[in-house]
Amino acid sequence: MPRRPREPCLGDVGEFGLIDRIAALARRVGGAAVALGIGDDAAILRLGRGEALAVTSDALVEGVHFRLDQETPRTVGRRALAANLSDLAAMGARPLGFTCALAAPPSLSLGVALGLVRGMLDLAARHGCPLVGGNVSRASEISLTLAALGAVARGKALTRAGARPGDRLLVTGSFGRSALERALGRVRHVPEPRVAAGLALARGGLARACIDVSDGLLADLSHLCRASRVGALIDARRVPLARGLEAAARRADLDPLRLALAGGEDYELLFVVGPRGPSAARLGQQLGVQVTEVGAVTARGLEVAGAPAGWSPAPGWRHF
Amino acid sequence: MPRRPREPCLGDVGEFGLIDRIAALARRVGGAAVALGIGDDAAILRLGRGEALAVTSDALVEGVHFRLDQETPRTVGRRALAANLSDLAAMGARPLGFTCALAAPPSLSLGVALGLVRGMLDLAARHGCPLVGGNVSRASEISLTLAALGAVARGKALTRAGARPGDRLLVTGSFGRSALERALGRVRHVPEPRVAAGLALARGGLARACIDVSDGLLADLSHLCRASRVGALIDARRVPLARGLEAAARRADLDPLRLALAGGEDYELLFVVGPRGPSAARLGQQLGVQVTEVGAVTARGLEVAGAPAGWSPAPGWRHF
Repeated sequence: MPRRPREPCLGDVGEFGLIDRIAALARRVGGAAVALGIGDDAAILRLGRGEALAVTSDALVEGVHFRLDQETPRTVGRRALAANLSDLAAMGARPLGFTCALAAPPSLSLGVALGLVRGMLDLAARHGCPLVGGNVSRASEISLTLAALGAVARGKALTRAGARPGDRLLVTGSFGRSALERALGRVRHVPEPRVAAGLALARGGLARACIDVSDGLLADLSHLCRASRVGALIDARRVPLARGLEAAARRADLDPLRLALAGGEDYELLFVVGPRGPSAARLGQQLGVQVTEVGAVTARGLEVAGAPAGWSPAPGWRHF
Repeated sequence: MPRRPREPCLGDVGEFGLIDRIAALARRVGGAAVALGIGDDAAILRLGRGEALAVTSDALVEGVHFRLDQETPRTVGRRALAANLSDLAAMGARPLGFTCALAAPPSLSLGVALGLVRGMLDLAARHGCPLVGGNVSRASEISLTLAALGAVARGKALTRAGARPGDRLLVTGSFGRSALERALGRVRHVPEPRVAAGLALARGGLARACIDVSDGLLADLSHLCRASRVGALIDARRVPLARGLEAAARRADLDPLRLALAGGEDYELLFVVGPRGPSAARLGQQLGVQVTEVGAVTARGLEVAGAPAGWSPAPGWRHF
């Protein structure tokens, strides 16, 4: 019987062989802003008149943020770009393009490496955010470090600062699904970053402050409060749980409220509107997504109302 | 005798403790382009009228690009930003700012981590290129992944394409010092990226093509030739060797020509000027740096003249 040929690995195709293959895939996703893409010392992107640049960077590291026995390379790739696009969404920025630094051992199969790239490009295509450059390097573990670039109308960026006591706290979408899948050791779903909703919030001047929920709803709320020098009261009963979360969590002996409030990687927007701003229903229409009012901005402290007696939120994910 | 307290590590200060310390250091290096720096979901940078964005990304990985027993954290940090600024220089871009994703084990000493940051900021201050954002993550090995942002006058970016047969090949500065220090296992010197020279080349419309020498003079020349679809003839006798390179290399039984032609991390500019363009001496005056003519662009192939009989260049550094 003929031996099945070994699958090619990064060591077989080499640094430039890998870059050529990535560039060929990347060229399929175009972007109006790209004057010069992959292949030179830097990429060149055009911004519109009156626009400023938004830039954010986020990384996924094997064994810390993903395990390839729990999800496909394509899902990991999608998550890597989703984290960055979610940050752009939280600024109200229009995606222009992204760079990706891939680090991996030479023994990594080429198929897995290109699966990671294809996952990023799946999402890139949907958001008109082409891969414009990056780096490949040898390393002992796999990591994807992205920088995403966006354009914001000058003076219209949504920052974390700007919330005032008496303002209302709102969220897009629902919470807890990513945390449930991580807890169960199977990640199949990557939340779609709220790029269009963020743009609509910024263009309409609708929000006084905004953050995306990546560390967990309470953790990111505390970041927003810190930047705005305010506190908040969040009503746990009003936090929209992902569909089926409650039943699935109970079956797995997990606390659905903890998954929703402290799970993270929801990639929803948490934003603040003035007391006389539009209703949640009206905002939902304007943003094209479910919007729920979950609490209010206070002078100081972070309180959770409506949680079961004795319940205390777990802290958000910390890296060290 | 009182026990000397253990030096704090990243695990002691936590993710946000580390970010706060980095942000405090970063705030000392300002940049005119920064509308919003570290601390929000993305940074906001302003470009000038008629300018486009240049973006590049490069990474240094422990054990691959640096060893902390061979150089200080500060030198590693400087090298990380130098690699990225050199790419901006090769495009003729004005630096605006950079992001840095730091990955490290929780056991890494806080002093080493902040040493890496201080090294980047040393160079950042000299080039008006502030640290505007990034990421910190747990990982089993230390790595620094940067994305540097610059501005180029629209249509004036120096690309690798554009060289034509009959054009002249020129280089800034001298070659081989970084490779010598790496070979000797002691890195003390970080070449200054040729940011001002790159800007002058672009603004004056002086170069038809340009690349920075990071992989090695021959390897980067081959990249430029590939992008321009041309060949080149380089005269080894004319390649300027770093001061003292010849003697130091001979003492260590190393080949100085190989260090200069294939060593890498020189961060000099290799550029192409038309046959009737300015002389090397005149270009040196315009760029404010030593400029040497080292060869010519040909129709195809890459040839090295003037090398000792039997000498063949080692290939440039490959990652896989």
